[in-house]
Amino acid sequence: MNEQVIRFASPFAVFFGDITDEIYAKTGLGLVEWRREECAGQLRLPACTVDAGVPDLTVAAARAAGVRTVIIGSAAVGGGIPPSWVASLCEAARAGLDIVAGLHVRLASLPGLAEAAAAGKARLIDVRVPPSRLPVGTGLRRSGRRLLTVGTDCACGKKYTALALARELQQRGIPSSFRATGQTGIMIAGEGIPIDAVVADFVTGAAEVLSPANDPGHWDVIEGQGALFHPGYLQVTVGLLVGSQPDAFVVCHDPLRRTVSGWPDFPLPTIAAVIKRATAIGSLTNPAIRCVGISLNTSKVPPSERAALLARFAAETGLPCVDPLSGGVGPVVDHLLESVSG
Amino acid sequence: MNEQVIRFASPFAVFFGDITDEIYAKTGLGLVEWRREECAGQLRLPACTVDAGVPDLTVAAARAAGVRTVIIGSAAVGGGIPPSWVASLCEAARAGLDIVAGLHVRLASLPGLAEAAAAGKARLIDVRVPPSRLPVGTGLRRSGRRLLTVGTDCACGKKYTALALARELQQRGIPSSFRATGQTGIMIAGEGIPIDAVVADFVTGAAEVLSPANDPGHWDVIEGQGALFHPGYLQVTVGLLVGSQPDAFVVCHDPLRRTVSGWPDFPLPTIAAVIKRATAIGSLTNPAIRCVGISLNTSKVPPSERAALLARFAAETGLPCVDPLSGGVGPVVDHLLESVSG
Repeated sequence: MNEQVIRFASPFAVFFGDITDEIYAKTGLGLVEWRREECAGQLRLPACTVDAGVPDLTVAAARAAGVRTVIIGSAAVGGGIPPSWVASLCEAARAGLDIVAGLHVRLASLPGLAEAAAAGKARLIDVRVPPSRLPVGTGLRRSGRRLLTVGTDCACGKKYTALALARELQQRGIPSSFRATGQTGIMIAGEGIPIDAVVADFVTGAAEVLSPANDPGHWDVIEGQGALFHPGYLQVTVGLLVGSQPDAFVVCHDPLRRTVSGWPDFPLPTIAAVIKRATAIGSLTNPAIRCVGISLNTSKVPPSERAALLARFAAETGLPCVDPLSGGVGPVVDHLLESVSG
Repeated sequence: MNEQVIRFASPFAVFFGDITDEIYAKTGLGLVEWRREECAGQLRLPACTVDAGVPDLTVAAARAAGVRTVIIGSAAVGGGIPPSWVASLCEAARAGLDIVAGLHVRLASLPGLAEAAAAGKARLIDVRVPPSRLPVGTGLRRSGRRLLTVGTDCACGKKYTALALARELQQRGIPSSFRATGQTGIMIAGEGIPIDAVVADFVTGAAEVLSPANDPGHWDVIEGQGALFHPGYLQVTVGLLVGSQPDAFVVCHDPLRRTVSGWPDFPLPTIAAVIKRATAIGSLTNPAIRCVGISLNTSKVPPSERAALLARFAAETGLPCVDPLSGGVGPVVDHLLESVSG
């Protein structure tokens, strides 16, 4: 990795402000789920009732515990940042803790925060803002192995599936890295590039920088974005696919969806169509690209029907079909390791 | 069109600075070629030896002639803007003439120019900088007809072909508009969006804004960008294709090229492969999309061999094959009007 990738240090503390509803704290709760060992604790204002189950810290206690970074893990109702939050963030920045956020407003625009960060020599890191000076894609082959999650739509489990695959590989002793392309993924990984915010000309180059050359046996598991048949976002997906030059991809699918979410005039493509299109486009930079499995989001399917549904999709596609949230991704990793030789 | 599109007013004068080599004046000379009737003249410093064959103007004479815009039509050697040029541009801005440029540096960063523009109520328009507040693509069908030029590579005649097609349609009395997607095209058209500089998420939306709903018999002829098998830029091409929802496309090709220009490891795709891929991807937003012709760039082919080459490509593809620079685009427009019903 290099400075062309957003990156921040661990251990971190999650800042929840004064939130009282978990729905506004999804980012912070996800962070604790996926990076528990690097999370030193949580910073909460007195009125906050959300609890991630990690130690409560003050700024002084966080510093004493070696915390390097404070990550804003909640969104205020309405999207703004209330003055009471800003005061706490200024205190942390003045104490030298880097501040990370995925807000619509830039951190430096919050009153007093830029000055506090300068005084404390702290960095203000907006994970929605891509690095500058990204290169144009070269298309050249890089060493190491790569897997990309590809969706039949947006918001159908690409990030979660990639995280689960990277963790499964690591648990089997196979070196692997989750590569984040969206703001929540970047917060979880501690590094990444918000690929949809990159200027169009540099999307392939950003994908190349994100998954650089690596050891031959190492797997990068890259978080997909958008969808190949999406009338608004397919260009992001295509650039990420070609720049990532994946050896393998996993198709993520919500079996209850009939049309593209938010684009009701566009029917959801079949999994077979997505496999065919991803293989055709991806072969430009990796002729050996292949689909190694299907990841279904069955959260809205009655538990009693899930096994039959997974079996049906597995039979239809001839590929292992899993739900990462119930049953894990083991069969996909089995097939990946069988079908892509080291 | 709306303010989501870069736009400037006519008549205009071309500013050539003190250039002595036509190679640095390509933009300005192209402007005069394609918009002669809206070009009131040229502004040249005493040392300038390039001559576009239009009246020489001073700033005062330009104002008196009703000029609204001064377009910087040359590049200084080395890419910067020398102080002598800046002084002339300040004079023009102070006199209320809008300044248009496609420089790597922003106009407002040139010493004194922002102040001069404020004093003269002139606009400074950088055509490399896309409009802000572009929408996400909707994919919804718009009235009117659209044609997109699609390349087997970058820099193979997509802009010139689109300009020639729009002019040929107009000369036949068919309402049509050239829609510019790159800086030179925007200067020629007086409006457009630099599509490759748009943030990735908004490329399809920018293409939709660029060719808005129109009368049923009207043709937008859209300047293509990038190429569908280009390892660096294909995402720009794909977003432009889907957002443009073209009824028809013309493939532009340099018959002497064997590999992607600047990417020697990537063989140039065949015209057939480009037709197949453009049709597959474009059918997402326009199921009736079809290829209506081939535009060859034969500038490096000996004149005695050109006719045979065009005939060979026409036979291979079953489509009219033209070189816009020698012989015009008539056969492609004939086929377009036959094959796409009003």
